[in-house]
Amino acid sequence: MPGKRERRAIRRAAKALAMEEALEKQRRTDEKYMRQAMKLAQKAEALGEVPIGCVIVHEDRVIGRGYNRRNTDHSTFSHAEITAMKKACRVLGDWRLEDCTLYVTLEPCSMCAGAIIQARIPRVVMACSNPKGGCAGSVINVLEEKGFNHQAEVVRGILEEECSRMLSAFFTALRKRLKSGD
Amino acid sequence: MPGKRERRAIRRAAKALAMEEALEKQRRTDEKYMRQAMKLAQKAEALGEVPIGCVIVHEDRVIGRGYNRRNTDHSTFSHAEITAMKKACRVLGDWRLEDCTLYVTLEPCSMCAGAIIQARIPRVVMACSNPKGGCAGSVINVLEEKGFNHQAEVVRGILEEECSRMLSAFFTALRKRLKSGD
Repeated sequence: MPGKRERRAIRRAAKALAMEEALEKQRRTDEKYMRQAMKLAQKAEALGEVPIGCVIVHEDRVIGRGYNRRNTDHSTFSHAEITAMKKACRVLGDWRLEDCTLYVTLEPCSMCAGAIIQARIPRVVMACSNPKGGCAGSVINVLEEKGFNHQAEVVRGILEEECSRMLSAFFTALRKRLKSGD
Repeated sequence: MPGKRERRAIRRAAKALAMEEALEKQRRTDEKYMRQAMKLAQKAEALGEVPIGCVIVHEDRVIGRGYNRRNTDHSTFSHAEITAMKKACRVLGDWRLEDCTLYVTLEPCSMCAGAIIQARIPRVVMACSNPKGGCAGSVINVLEEKGFNHQAEVVRGILEEECSRMLSAFFTALRKRLKSGD
């Protein structure tokens, strides 16, 4: 039997290891669901829309999916997050989406960030930032605003590179099309 | 014929009068539409919902109406403004609601304020402020945030007293009901 000091060191090391493992597991889970959000973003791209996708997860089950269809639907509400949240509200039969995690490939705009706060979603995982309109810290920070009666935990940078490449490729192709006058 | 100086004074006075008359006309128009928003708020109250109503006006025609139905619909998107904006988008066949004025009885929340910016509504007329969640200056100011690619002109305090009385009466009655355990 090791001495008291060693036992303490072992327990401390075990605790640190467990925490690291839990974080690693969480990261893998986050990547798994972000990959699903990316697949949805590709559906938007196939429609000629900016590729943005979103899934909402409740108790390890996807209860809402959405992708950007703003031009297709002629509606300002056809953002990926709003569509996914609407479906999740229907599944849970409640306007509150407590105990849910929202995964989205691009930092939410002011409307979507506001909707996340209204629906009291506790955790938001995002891939890329949006310096021009993002409301999770880029322009303003609606998700973590202490003045509201609810704040969301924000995880940034999950599959950031892949989502960022997808967006860049879309805009490069769009500029090329516009230049050639198609 | 009056002298040069008098003529200038007359023209200046006429200009000031015209501006005052235009402002007075605008105020009367704003009150007319705010009264329609109040009527819609009463529909919300009849459902036991917080009385909030909204109309959207385009070329002196109401193209969207909405009232709060959040609990009735179990949806976080059943705010007065969102419902009115959805209808207006359908009428105009566009996600942009340019050249529209949105009238709402209570300062918009973060979601609705964000949606107003997303839809590029140029003018928002509101009755009461909402110190707990309002996003036209009370908690944050989404509508006039210079960091976004669009800002709305905000007119405050149209029929403020009447709308405020309506809200207070609702909450007083609600507290009474909750106290008596109904």
